[in-house]
Amino acid sequence: MNYYPKSIRNAIRSISRLPGIGEKTAERLVMHILRAPRVEAEQLARSILELKEKIKLCRGCFGLSDSDVCSICRDTGREAALLCVVEQPADMVSLEKSGSYSGRYLILGGTLSPMNGIGPGDIRIRELITRLEEEKIEEVVLATSTTVEGESTAAYIADRLKKYSVKVTRIASGVPIGGDLKYVDQVTLRKAMECRHDVK
Amino acid sequence: MNYYPKSIRNAIRSISRLPGIGEKTAERLVMHILRAPRVEAEQLARSILELKEKIKLCRGCFGLSDSDVCSICRDTGREAALLCVVEQPADMVSLEKSGSYSGRYLILGGTLSPMNGIGPGDIRIRELITRLEEEKIEEVVLATSTTVEGESTAAYIADRLKKYSVKVTRIASGVPIGGDLKYVDQVTLRKAMECRHDVK
Repeated sequence: MNYYPKSIRNAIRSISRLPGIGEKTAERLVMHILRAPRVEAEQLARSILELKEKIKLCRGCFGLSDSDVCSICRDTGREAALLCVVEQPADMVSLEKSGSYSGRYLILGGTLSPMNGIGPGDIRIRELITRLEEEKIEEVVLATSTTVEGESTAAYIADRLKKYSVKVTRIASGVPIGGDLKYVDQVTLRKAMECRHDVK
Repeated sequence: MNYYPKSIRNAIRSISRLPGIGEKTAERLVMHILRAPRVEAEQLARSILELKEKIKLCRGCFGLSDSDVCSICRDTGREAALLCVVEQPADMVSLEKSGSYSGRYLILGGTLSPMNGIGPGDIRIRELITRLEEEKIEEVVLATSTTVEGESTAAYIADRLKKYSVKVTRIASGVPIGGDLKYVDQVTLRKAMECRHDVK
C-alpha cells in the first residue's frame, strides 16, 4: 500500500471496504480506473452518489424506489388481493425475475432473531397488519427464506394472522430443479417427501 | 435489471463495467452501498474522482504519482547507478514490496508485440536511452515478465544497449520458492537447471 501515491492508497482503501473485495482486487480495479477514460470514472462516481441521493423506501412495500411509491405498488394491473411477504428488497427482485407472481409485496426488512435481539417490533409486522386492515387482501404468501430464522418468522406471522380473515400460504420447499437426488441434503428431501402432491 | 429503479440500474451498469465484476456482484455491491452510511459512499465516489484528477505519470520513471516526480525518483537515498526496467507500474510496486531492490525504475508501459502492432516506438525505449545518456547509470536490470513478450522485449533492449558502456542484467528465472519440483513445468525446470549456481 505504501508504495502507491496517496490518492491511489485512498481509492484502494475505499474500494476494499466493499464486501467480497480484498486489497488485491481493489488494487486491480484502481489500475483499471486509471487506464479507463475519465468519463467512465465520473459515471461510476456519480452513479454511486445518486444511489444515496435518489433511492428511498417505497411507502407501500418498503422496497427500494426512485419515487414515494414504487412501480410495482403503482401498477394497477397487479392483483391487489395478493400480498407476498419477503425479507429483503433483493428477494422481491428474485421473485419478479422468476415471473411467477403477479400480486404486491411487503418487505419485512429482516427476520426474527431472538439471538441477535431482533423481535417482532424490529421487522415490519405492524405495517403488514395495517395493510391487511386497510386493503382488501385475500391471500398473504409467506416467502421468507427456508433458513431457521426465515421459517420461524413465517410461522410467527402465520400465527399472528390467524385472527384475520385472510388465507395464509407458504412457498413450497423441496428438491431444487436440476437437483440430483443423491446430492440433496436430508432435510430438503424429507420436506420434499412430506409436501408431495398428486401428479396432474 | 428492469426490476430495479433507474438509479440502481445505472449504478449496477457502471460497477459491472469494472474488470472481473459481473452483474450479480455489482448488484450485491449496490445493495451494500445502499445500506452503508452516506459518508462511506461519498468517500468511495470522491476517491474514484481523485484518481483521475490527481494521478499523473512521474517525469522520471513514468510510474503513477501524485506529483511531477514520484517519491522513488525523488529519494536521494536510492542507488542512482541502478536502473530497473519493468513493464507496468504494478510490477514496480511488486518489486518494492519484495524489498529486494534499492535503485530507480523505468516503466516501459508494455512489451513489444509485433502481432498486436506494438513496436519499439510504442514502449519507452527512447526514454530509457535518454536516461542512460543523461545519468550515470552503471547497471540496467531487465525485469520484464518471463512471458514470450517479456523475454523478447528484454532481449531486444539488451541488444539495443550493447553500444552503451552499461552492464545489462536480467532477473533470474527458476523454480519459485515453495514450488514442488514434480508440479513445475518443464520450461521452468530447464531454465532452473541452465541457471544453476555454486552453493555458497
